[in-house]
Amino acid sequence: MAKPPRLDEFQRIARFFSPLAGKGALGLKDDVALIDGPPGTQYVLKTDAIVEKVHFFSDDPPDQVARKLLRVNLSDLAAKGATPVGYLLTTALTARQDETWLAKFSAGLASDQKKFGIALLGGDSTRTHGAATLSVTAIGRVAAGEAPTRGGARPGDAVWMTGTLGDAALGLLLLKQRKSALRLRGNDEKFLIRRYRLPEPRMALGKKIAPLASASMDISDGLVADLGHIASASKVGAVIETARLPLSRAARAALAADRHLLRAILTGGDDYEILFTARTVPAGLPVTRIGRIVRGKGVTVLDPTGATLRLGPGGYTHF
Amino acid sequence: MAKPPRLDEFQRIARFFSPLAGKGALGLKDDVALIDGPPGTQYVLKTDAIVEKVHFFSDDPPDQVARKLLRVNLSDLAAKGATPVGYLLTTALTARQDETWLAKFSAGLASDQKKFGIALLGGDSTRTHGAATLSVTAIGRVAAGEAPTRGGARPGDAVWMTGTLGDAALGLLLLKQRKSALRLRGNDEKFLIRRYRLPEPRMALGKKIAPLASASMDISDGLVADLGHIASASKVGAVIETARLPLSRAARAALAADRHLLRAILTGGDDYEILFTARTVPAGLPVTRIGRIVRGKGVTVLDPTGATLRLGPGGYTHF
Repeated sequence: MAKPPRLDEFQRIARFFSPLAGKGALGLKDDVALIDGPPGTQYVLKTDAIVEKVHFFSDDPPDQVARKLLRVNLSDLAAKGATPVGYLLTTALTARQDETWLAKFSAGLASDQKKFGIALLGGDSTRTHGAATLSVTAIGRVAAGEAPTRGGARPGDAVWMTGTLGDAALGLLLLKQRKSALRLRGNDEKFLIRRYRLPEPRMALGKKIAPLASASMDISDGLVADLGHIASASKVGAVIETARLPLSRAARAALAADRHLLRAILTGGDDYEILFTARTVPAGLPVTRIGRIVRGKGVTVLDPTGATLRLGPGGYTHF
Repeated sequence: MAKPPRLDEFQRIARFFSPLAGKGALGLKDDVALIDGPPGTQYVLKTDAIVEKVHFFSDDPPDQVARKLLRVNLSDLAAKGATPVGYLLTTALTARQDETWLAKFSAGLASDQKKFGIALLGGDSTRTHGAATLSVTAIGRVAAGEAPTRGGARPGDAVWMTGTLGDAALGLLLLKQRKSALRLRGNDEKFLIRRYRLPEPRMALGKKIAPLASASMDISDGLVADLGHIASASKVGAVIETARLPLSRAARAALAADRHLLRAILTGGDDYEILFTARTVPAGLPVTRIGRIVRGKGVTVLDPTGATLRLGPGGYTHF
């Protein structure tokens, strides 16, 4: 007998977990939860896990694994304009994560705690088989009512992002293929790999963005998917103009050599830049307008001529 | 070259994580962290993970896995007298945890959410290889300054506990041996296995205990180890009088058949009862006095004649 088709992560959440959601959970349709804090404030809560061989390689430098774990959570706080307060850490480790590994891992945490002004509040540690699993619950503080959700985008808003797009996806390609697949200069390769391993949460910029944004989140699942989350939660459509995408020198070089990499740039994850919608932003705010919100639903990607790109599973096609 | 000896969990935390601890972390020497809440309140934060084949069996009923996961965290809130607010859930699942499993798992959560008045606030889900890892961050609320720590026990205090001791450890023995190893009646076997699979966090009792207790925590690592944590954090010694231990009928029957099971009862984990110290408690409070706090350090276990029991790794011996 045929098994019913497997649900993807979002369908699983919708079916099995959304019915469990309480007040503050934002229907599990946001990255974060909100609870009341001291007068005039709310706490922003975010939990994110990384798994060995899924999200990081066994031989990745342990300090960078630690810093990435912390940063992927901080990135969600940044997208809500929150100030970091503290974090809880759960580690399920195999025998591979020995004391040498742990010493480097905790040194990475110490370094980023200092950089981001956050401290460890508690946690749990256990052993496991197979793959190490590391999870962080990060706690931030915002002025009450000021954290933008995913659901406030309106037709006429522009779509904006911080930083550059696709570097991490290209860095991951380089790490997976373990060869100079993208025919890049050594410095460009190093840059892309570093962008994959060590995202840069936009904490300061996030505080400037939050009061302006009608919707805001970080790009972790890939631009097209994440803008789709905003469109869906806001009940609107969104258009991405590829000609406007902010690309690093390394990403531009890779794309020049192989234009099919545009799909990885648009749909690859791990950028950890802030994606937001706002009618306008002040001059000088270092963000890039990459599209617009429209009536309708879903995400449309336009090539430089204004034609619609179709992002199929095997690449993209014009139609 | 010989490798340095491996550190146990507590030594690892002390060496690698305690230096990272911030205000509110209670030096990572408590089970929970505290942050300021709305006026007059604090939030109690607790995170605990369970791993397949370490903390639960692959064929355990998924609803009971879910309920145990939630309850082991609620138990820590209970020991601090906290009212549940909400929780974050992280799941790293293998292909074994299919949709049938997930449906039962989420039904278990739904049932206990209702029972304990707690709701899901957010989470993360990912896939893994090897062993499923599930973690919860539970959030509770207490009156500011009222959550007892581990560090307040004083000589002259009595040691108290809720419920009965050792049932879960005996239940785990039954599950591991998969035979009637303890020569018990069927109902007693079922009772012990259920106590292992489904702890009963003492939420209501915990609220009565918190204002009385000089120190309080839940018993998760085993009575001797956990009372040792209180003794160490409080810089005192503790004495357990085995003649006073509250034992269920099933545990008494098991012990009558094999007196060496006393070690499992004293040192096995997973009781999730509240262990606390207080000079006296009001008449009628359903707790049992099991020992006393003394000057000195460490935990001394006395047999019914008043002689010291030594709990070696292979069992206990008189000396």
